[in-house]
Parts: sequence; C-alpha cells; structure tokens
Amino acid sequence: MKAFPQKNRVPLAVRALAIIGILTIGTATVHAAVDMEVQFIFNTFSFLVWGALVMWMCAGFTMLEAGSVRTKNASMICLKNLGLYSIAGLAYYFLGYNLMYVDVGKVMGSFTFLYGPSPDDIALVAGNAEAKMAVIENGYSTMSDWFFQMVFVATTASIVSGTLAERVKMWSFFLFILALTAIIYPIVGAWTWGEGWLYQMGFKDFAGSTIVHSTGGWAALAGAMVVGPRLGKFRRDGTVKPTPPSNILAVTLGVFILWFGWFGFNGGSQLALGSAADIVGMSHVLVNTNLAAAAGVMAALACSRPILGQTDLVTGLNGAIAGLVSITAGPDLVEPYWAVIIGAIGGALCTVGMKLMIRMKLDDVVGAVPAHLFAGIWGTLAVCLAGGGDPVVQLLGVVAVGVFVFVSSWLLWKILALTLEVRVSKKVEQLGQDIGELGIDAYPEFVLMPEEEDEI
Amino acid sequence: MKAFPQKNRVPLAVRALAIIGILTIGTATVHAAVDMEVQFIFNTFSFLVWGALVMWMCAGFTMLEAGSVRTKNASMICLKNLGLYSIAGLAYYFLGYNLMYVDVGKVMGSFTFLYGPSPDDIALVAGNAEAKMAVIENGYSTMSDWFFQMVFVATTASIVSGTLAERVKMWSFFLFILALTAIIYPIVGAWTWGEGWLYQMGFKDFAGSTIVHSTGGWAALAGAMVVGPRLGKFRRDGTVKPTPPSNILAVTLGVFILWFGWFGFNGGSQLALGSAADIVGMSHVLVNTNLAAAAGVMAALACSRPILGQTDLVTGLNGAIAGLVSITAGPDLVEPYWAVIIGAIGGALCTVGMKLMIRMKLDDVVGAVPAHLFAGIWGTLAVCLAGGGDPVVQLLGVVAVGVFVFVSSWLLWKILALTLEVRVSKKVEQLGQDIGELGIDAYPEFVLMPEEEDEI
Amino acid sequence: MKAFPQKNRVPLAVRALAIIGILTIGTATVHAAVDMEVQFIFNTFSFLVWGALVMWMCAGFTMLEAGSVRTKNASMICLKNLGLYSIAGLAYYFLGYNLMYVDVGKVMGSFTFLYGPSPDDIALVAGNAEAKMAVIENGYSTMSDWFFQMVFVATTASIVSGTLAERVKMWSFFLFILALTAIIYPIVGAWTWGEGWLYQMGFKDFAGSTIVHSTGGWAALAGAMVVGPRLGKFRRDGTVKPTPPSNILAVTLGVFILWFGWFGFNGGSQLALGSAADIVGMSHVLVNTNLAAAAGVMAALACSRPILGQTDLVTGLNGAIAGLVSITAGPDLVEPYWAVIIGAIGGALCTVGMKLMIRMKLDDVVGAVPAHLFAGIWGTLAVCLAGGGDPVVQLLGVVAVGVFVFVSSWLLWKILALTLEVRVSKKVEQLGQDIGELGIDAYPEFVLMPEEEDEI
Repeated sequence: MKAFPQKNRVPLAVRALAIIGILTIGTATVHAAVDMEVQFIFNTFSFLVWGALVMWMCAGFTMLEAGSVRTKNASMICLKNLGLYSIAGLAYYFLGYNLMYVDVGKVMGSFTFLYGPSPDDIALVAGNAEAKMAVIENGYSTMSDWFFQMVFVATTASIVSGTLAERVKMWSFFLFILALTAIIYPIVGAWTWGEGWLYQMGFKDFAGSTIVHSTGGWAALAGAMVVGPRLGKFRRDGTVKPTPPSNILAVTLGVFILWFGWFGFNGGSQLALGSAADIVGMSHVLVNTNLAAAAGVMAALACSRPILGQTDLVTGLNGAIAGLVSITAGPDLVEPYWAVIIGAIGGALCTVGMKLMIRMKLDDVVGAVPAHLFAGIWGTLAVCLAGGGDPVVQLLGVVAVGVFVFVSSWLLWKILALTLEVRVSKKVEQLGQDIGELGIDAYPEFVLMPEEEDEI
Repeated sequence: MKAFPQKNRVPLAVRALAIIGILTIGTATVHAAVDMEVQFIFNTFSFLVWGALVMWMCAGFTMLEAGSVRTKNASMICLKNLGLYSIAGLAYYFLGYNLMYVDVGKVMGSFTFLYGPSPDDIALVAGNAEAKMAVIENGYSTMSDWFFQMVFVATTASIVSGTLAERVKMWSFFLFILALTAIIYPIVGAWTWGEGWLYQMGFKDFAGSTIVHSTGGWAALAGAMVVGPRLGKFRRDGTVKPTPPSNILAVTLGVFILWFGWFGFNGGSQLALGSAADIVGMSHVLVNTNLAAAAGVMAALACSRPILGQTDLVTGLNGAIAGLVSITAGPDLVEPYWAVIIGAIGGALCTVGMKLMIRMKLDDVVGAVPAHLFAGIWGTLAVCLAGGGDPVVQLLGVVAVGVFVFVSSWLLWKILALTLEVRVSKKVEQLGQDIGELGIDAYPEFVLMPEEEDEI
Repeated sequence: MKAFPQKNRVPLAVRALAIIGILTIGTATVHAAVDMEVQFIFNTFSFLVWGALVMWMCAGFTMLEAGSVRTKNASMICLKNLGLYSIAGLAYYFLGYNLMYVDVGKVMGSFTFLYGPSPDDIALVAGNAEAKMAVIENGYSTMSDWFFQMVFVATTASIVSGTLAERVKMWSFFLFILALTAIIYPIVGAWTWGEGWLYQMGFKDFAGSTIVHSTGGWAALAGAMVVGPRLGKFRRDGTVKPTPPSNILAVTLGVFILWFGWFGFNGGSQLALGSAADIVGMSHVLVNTNLAAAAGVMAALACSRPILGQTDLVTGLNGAIAGLVSITAGPDLVEPYWAVIIGAIGGALCTVGMKLMIRMKLDDVVGAVPAHLFAGIWGTLAVCLAGGGDPVVQLLGVVAVGVFVFVSSWLLWKILALTLEVRVSKKVEQLGQDIGELGIDAYPEFVLMPEEEDEI
C-alpha cells in the first residue's frame, strides 16, 4: 500500500562526511560538512516553507482568472479553482505520487494506492530514538517531499482552468483534472524528476518549465480545441469580440501572488538547504527569478505598443508570468544578466503568442497557453544558452512531453465531450455559469451592464 | 511587572544530550542531538515564521467577512477586523499572556500587567555573552513564544466578528473583544496549554480545535443569541430572506488566505523545529492539514447537492474551513487517510450545521459557528480515533470550555446590551453600518441595487 | 563589472570562535558558537525568506493605492506599481547596488554596472569544495544580500506612486522611479547602510524609517508640489472636494499585506540569524513591530473622532502604516511598551498630518507623506528615547537625507515637467487615466456613477 522512494537529492559525498562532524585539520581552510541532523532539518523545513508558499499560488491563479472572466462567470471560476486544488491534493495522495516517484522504471512508477510516512519516520515521531539515523540518512522527511511535490501538481491543474473559463462544464472539468493530476502529470514527472528515461538522457528542467508549465499548457490547448471558443468570440466577419477583464485589481493581485509564490516554486526546487552550496544556489535562484519576471514585464510592455497599439496592463501582467515561466527551467544560472535576457524574450514571446492564439481562433481566456506553454518551451531550450544543457535532449524532452500530454489530453477531452459533454448549453453560456450552473452571482449587489449580445 | 514562564516544550532529554555535541560511537548508527544553540535558533525561527503566517489569517477573515456581508456593511466589517487584531495584540500584551502562561495553577495564571523579554534575553542582546547558556536552555526566545501565542488569540477574536456582522455596534463589539482576548480566552488557555487542570487530566488539542476555534465559536453563538438576527432575516411566514455574499472573489480569497495561514497555525504548533523528530512531525502536520481541507471541500460540495439543492460555492468554501478546524486538534497523526476522513466528516457536518442554524433561527452571517464550533467539537473528539486520546477527557474538555466560554460570553453580551446597547438602531441597520456609523461607503462609485426592503 | 563588498554584518568575534566547533569546558555553562556553515545557511536563508515577504509588500501598496483612487484611475495605478517594482529591480541590478554598497567612500560607492555572485560563490555552486571556506567567511551569500536590499528600494519607489496617483503621467513617473532607484536612494543608502559619512557619525536607522520611508516620502512630497493637486480637489471657495476610496476592501487588504510584509522588512533587517543573540533580537523586532502597528491603529482611531469628526476606517488603516513606519528605525528595543508608545504617537501624528496636508493644499491621494515621511521622522528621532541614539546625529541624518532627497527629487520632477511633462492633459484627467492613457477600464462591467464635475 505504501512504498518509499530512495532518491538521493542530498549529495552522498556530503552526507558521508557529515558524520565525522566538525574538523579542523591544520589550518582553518578545511571545513567539514554540516551535521547530518541539522542538514535534515534544513532540507525538510525548506520543503515545508517554500511548499506552503507554492500552495498560495493557487490563490493567485484564482484571482487572476476570476478577475479576467466576465462577472457572470466569476463565481464558477472560483469554485473550479477551489475544487481543482482539492482534487489535485487528493489524487496525488491516492495515486499520483506513487506513479511519479515510487519504483520508477523508464516510463512510470508504481500503480499503487495511498502514500504515507516511511516506517522510520513513524517510529521516530512515536519516540523510537533508534530510528533517527535511518530517518536523517534520507536527507528529508518523506512527507515533506510529498507536500512539496503536491503543490506542483496543483499548479499544473490551475493552468487549465484559465484557458477554458466561461464555457467548460464543471463536472467534466473536474474529471479531467482528476486524470491530469492522478495520471498524466505523474507520468511526465516519472520520466524526468522520477528519474525515468528523459532524466537518464540528461534532460534538464530545474523547477518545471516543461514538466509543470508546458504540461498545463498542452492540456489547456487540447481543451481549447475540443471545447471550442466562447460563443461570439470570433465573429463571422473575422473580427474578434473584446472580452476585457471584469476586475483589473483582482488580476493584478493574482499576478503579484504568483510572483511571490514563485520564490517558493523555484527556490524550493533547489531541493536542499543544508549546505553552503545549496543555500548559495537558492540565492541565485531567487535573484534570477525576480530579474526574469521584471524583464518579462518591461519587454511585454515595450512590445505591447507596436504589436497591440498601446501600452497594455494585461500584457504587462502576462509578461511577468511568461518571464517567470521562462526562467523556471534554469534559475540556477550564475550570471544574472542571462535571467534578464531569458525573461525579456519570454515576455516578448508571450505578447506575440497572445496575438497568434487569436489569429488561430483559439480562445484562451487568460492567455495561459502563451504564458505557460510558449514561454515554457523557450525556457527549456534557453537552458542550453546559460547553463549548458544538451540542445537535442532539451528539444526531445519538449517534444516528447508535448506529444504525450497533448494527445492524451485531447483524447480525454474528446471522450468527455462524447459522454458527459464538456460544454455548457448555449443558454447557460449566455446567462453565465454563475446563475446558470451555480445559481449565484459573484457580485449580486452591483448593477451590471448587460453584456451586449453579438450575433453568434 | 513581568514574569517568565518555565515551560519545557523542548524535551529535556534531548537538550541534556545536546551539549555533548556530535559523537560517533562505534558505528555510525548513533547520532547525538543537535547543538543546543542551533536548536534554539530553529525553535525560535519556527515561532516567528509560522507566527507571521498566522497573523496573515486575519486578512483572510477580513476578506471572507467583508465579501460575505452586504455592501452597505463592508467597510464596517473591515474596521472591526482591523480593530480586533489591534486590540487582541495589545490586550494579550497587557494582561492575557500572563493570565494564560505565567505561574499557572489549576485555573489561571498571574493577574499581572505587561510582559517582556526575560532578563537573560535582554542581557544577551545587550552583548553579555555569559547569558547565552541560560537563554538557550529555555529552548526558544521568550518573545517569540509571546508572538506565536498572540496571533492565536487574534484568530479567536476574528471568529466572532463574522457571525455578528451587519448589526452589532462597533464599540460594544470592541469591548467584548477586549474581554475575550484579555481574560476569557487566556483562562481557557491556562487550563490547557498553560498546563492547568485540563492539561493535567490529559486533554489533547494540538493547535486548538477547542481552545481557539470552539472558544471563538461559543463566544459568537452567545453573541448571536443576545444580539439577535438581522432585521427581516427570518420572516414571519417562516421563510428565510436570502443574504448572498456581495463579493464572491473576496470570500474566496479569504478562504485561500486562511488555508495558507493554517500551515503556520498547525505547523508552528509543533512548538519546536530543532530535532529530526520535530521536523518530521511538522511535515505530517502540514500534509494532514492540507488533506483535511481538501476533503472538507469535496465532502461539503457533495453534501450541498442533496441538502441545499445545488452545488454551492459558499458551502465548499466553508467546507475547507471546517476541514481545517477538524484536523486542528490532531494534525500530528501519522496515517494521512485519517486526515481525509476527519476533514470530510467536518466538511459534511458544517454543511448540515449551516442548515441547522437557520432552522434554529440563529443568524450567523458567515457560517462561523458551524465551521469553527461544530467542526471544532468534532475534531477534538476525533483525536481519539486517530491519535489515541481519552474520549472521556476529550468530551470533558469540550463541555467545560463550552460552558465556561458560552456562559461568560452570554453574560458579557447581556451586560453590554443593558448598558451600551449591542445593536445598532433599526435605521442604521437598514441604511447600513457604513453610512450609518462610519459615514463612508465601501464601494462609493458603484451603483448598488437598492436592497429590497422586506416587511420587518 | 562586478565587485564584492566586504561588510561584516556577522560579528567577527563570533565567527572566529565558530571554527573551533562545539566545546565543553569543565561545566556546561560555556557554549561555543554555532558552526560557521550553519550560521551561513541561517543568515542567508533569513535574507531569502524575509526578502520574499518584503516583495509581497509591493502587492500591498498596489491594493492600497488601487482601492484608494477613483475607479477611473485604478488600472493605471496597477500598471504603475507593476512597472515600478520591475524597474526598481532592474535598476538596482544595473547600477543601484554598486552605488550603495561597493567601495563606498564617504558619499557613494562605485559607479559601475551590473552585479553578480562573488567568484567564490560561483566556484562553490560549480562544485569546487575548496571555495567553501571563503564563501562561508562572508557570513551570507552575496546574492541573498542583493535580493534583500533590492526589495527595499522597491518599497521606497512604491511610496511615490500613491501620493501622485490620478494625474502623473506614466512615462514621466517611470523615469523618475528609474532615477530614484538607480541613484537617489542608493546614495542615501551609501551614507548609512553602506557605511558612509552618516554611518560613521553613528546614525541609527535599523530598517529604514529615514532611509527607506522618509526617502520615499520626500520624493513624493517634491512630486506633489511640482505636479500639483488633482483638478478640482481644492475648490476656489476654500472647500475640499472629497475623493473617497473607491474600493475599501482593496485598501484594507493592502494594509494587511503591508503589516504582514513588515515582519520581513524589520525582522530581516536583523541581517543575521545564525546565533542565539540574533534570533532573540529578531523576536523582539517582530513583537515590537506588531505592537507599534496595533497602537498606531488605536491611536489614529481615537484621534479621528476629535480631529475628523468621526471614527474613520481610512485613518485607522493609515495609522497602522504610521505605527509600522515609526518603529522601523528602532524595532530592536527591549521594552515592548516603548513600541506601544512610539507606534501610538506615530498613528496620532499621521492623523494630524493628513489634516495638515489638506490645509497646505498638498494633494496626497493615499496619505503617504504623513504615514511615511512624518512618521518616519518621528521614528528616527524616537530611537533616542528607547534605544539610546544621539539626538543630534539622528536629527542631522533626518535633515541631510531630507534636503538631499527633496532637492534632487524636486529638480528631477521639474526637469521632467519642462521636457516630457509630468501631468496628463485636463481631458485625460477628467476621463480618467484608464481610458485616457491605457484604453481600458478597471471594472468595465460595473456601472459607475458619473463623478460629478466640479468647477475647476
């Protein structure tokens, strides 16, 4: 029922030294490693603190999406985000983590149910001091790793809800999220962080430009193609109906939450804190993360003038996310100017991508595909520039994950479309999902301008 | 004027070993404890980081409540929350902490004013290195514990404002909060965490399902009975006037803030970080906290269909809180599926409880009594299932705290009602407290739908 | 291109001992220092965790300001805040940090471009274990310090946008921010934290009442004088047009975010975590920060009755900020009641200051000058009461920073006014910057009450 992965995230060489304690050999220039138990505490605490911050990103996606949709669908998007985070956590507990990390071969881990603390961890908290050595040799507590991995799968799920907002049926959406978080994402994870075939080829993706963000982006893109655009979004005469965010403050707050949470997302992905090398690396990660986001904002704002005709706030906000996604595959680079360059290109790409999506009549309500998928691909390839990954392997990883996630998601959306339907009725869509499906209003006391009905 | 509690939260056995340092006896299987000063830093830092996160929960309560009330009372609820957090912090500094933790007998601690750092702590920061040993023997800095305890009393106070929103008078409310945070809560705390009579009987309440959440719930319930329902809420014909949240985004944001903050609330309640056993325990706490909340959401959503007729967002949001409250008495359990079960039952109970409150014509604006009191009782009893508490003692604790808090709160509300009045005038209630008491509007530039006036 | 400051934030005496490890001399009363590498991890982690929390304050300023302006300017203030945080981060990377901390003489540091990790830090993360000793002797990783300092400069910039909201031109504003964060603030910083002339005289400003908050306040005041009040704010008949916040929930949320973030702002300014003395000091900082804010709220609310005629939420919220700013120069004091006194006086001063600003026909949209400048001056002087600073030096610091920042800012605003213009056209101002400059609405689906046009 439960099993315990034997990953060696904390370098063995360091750990082997640790038991010796603190040595002063001759001069003061040799310094042995940090005590193993202290390392264990640091590593585990890092997972908990940064993981909690990543959970907070779910609030960021919620605000970003709920502010971006029209008011008539704002309650529904809140419910979808609340539900998807809950489902992701439960699905990853019931199956996902085992599939991703336990006894991983080339392709996937163990198809077993439930996960829990290692017997040593249980013995230690029960007061059995003899279990301590075995516990600390693992480098971190088993459940702290589960916690940190769980908030990542929730991030992947969050990406999907934004793209498909305002028309996808709630229960079909939840079923998709269940499959995504219990099976699809864990398989991608098994190939890479679970040390499956892509890992063995040398694929590099520090915190998940491809593994988390592109996976979410491909799943969203497949959904957008199967579910189709919102009624009237692409008019017969070739023009596009504007659907501006209904609450700019909420969107802006959401982006700041995501930016803040990304320090946990990338910083915690250092996966260890118990040595000088790890905390120095984590420092670089936070600095690069912030610089890439800032550069993404400025590049997106600069591009929005020529491309969109005016300086545009929403483009700037999406530029921040694109900058963050871009740096996520390699935030451990040591020259900060690379973070500026990578983030700026990510922000610009996202701005172009938003225009491209509209050209292709793909209706992505919040621009999640440009920000997470396009920037995610760019970031994964950019690792080769700044950090020295193998371009062929990086490209192979991008393509393999893309094909697997897109195809499996597309099939799943199709099956849902043919069985439960994936799209609300025309009447519900016009009325809004809040009234139509939930029977509530997001802002019942505010008079809304009746949205003008286009020809459809 | 000041006094210094001598609690031994960090196990003495561990501390006694610590001074020996790092030993390698024979093989590598024996590992001595972490250096005492390092333990001290970890323990204290845990109080500070997690405590700061608990303070953030106050913003969560504020958003949850301000989004739940009608717009005409939204500014007032913001002011009440700002004020209650300020009052709680000052009251706990002036009196509460001493009453709860200093020289506690069976029933309460010391009725002395003001609190401050220990003389050793003061000496150490003044540069007296000789004070260090005494300082670190305490296990954590005196004021870090005060800080962590202070944010808990603020949480208790936050629960009350939601239930009584839209009709309780500001100054009477503030006076009640002053008494609650300076006296009532500290006495409950003295019985339990202060190591008074309930503690001595073996009562278990890890982070305060009873001590914090039920205490707030009982105080709110007493207030709801004395203050009475909002005008027109329960109509003469037996029907109930719907009072939907005015800002669903704010409510949702509030719940995400609370969920996030709960990692600090429960995680920090491990009360130590300086050993492998403590950080392993803290890992379990965070995982269980998240699973219980997720299960609470899904159970509440599942129940909302048969009980309320449709899938309801607000019920799902309250289910998250109920799941969190339920697990708070025993988040250190080692089998995560117990957290799922406990949280799910909590979420379901809360949904039933919301219906029950309406049946009993008790007007609880945000559903705080079902979420904090009902789920709090359930969580305190559930400890026996998963963690091995004594059912009789747990029940005794629930009843004793309930009787004491409910009776003292009811009397206090009654006294306030007879002297200062606890309820705004009918005119102010109809107009809204924002205009009526504060002279401002929460959203002055938005046209509001004039709320239809029911017969009263 | 890069250079590496040699600050000694971690006391050398402690570090010298550290290499010896853990000693037990005779009895257990002597305890050697924490292992140097563990100290290094603690110190660096403190910068990262608390620094991330300070970044979050930017969201607080954004919500506070976007809720305070009229809806027609809410999108623009979101964009300004997004942009200023991005610009501040980039400017501080390209130039600011070097000017503030690298090779500082009396007046300023090195006018060189770009900053990056030390060669030792780079070597260590590249796997060169021999670099470790040199790395840990620095006490913290080079980039963690950069990160923590960067979020401070962003705070200074955030102060300016609030005061000048609703009429300052976006690009002129961004240019001012560029100069403020690349040059003006770093020079003030070089005098003080960079160990220039004011530092050498013994000027005390723990976390920046003067260095951060007054600097922002002076820059805002100069801007308010050059840019002038909003159209119609001060009427010809001497009355003042009320411009109430358009979204009280957003303002309240913003203040809670700032309060929460201030734990990182002041707590992280302990600058070290790796010893008992440091974490005890940090505990005092957090407690005092919270008490001062709470006292600021209560004092402001108490003053708002006699001064403004009624209990006022916005005054209470600004009182929290003023309390926080007041304690920022000396949050390490050991008697908490001093924090209560200092915070309360700060809150009262701010309330009086808000009235004073209006008297002087200075239009400060969010009250940033009273909260950050007036309270910042008070806090810097108050250090002498509670912590023992030299009143003459403190006053000199206040005046010197004031003259330098005010004059340079005033000149810069004037130059911008004469070249690019600093103020939007009358038409854009009446229409609102959202539609006028950005072409979007913050809340497009909500019907807005057309703001009545005063005679101008």
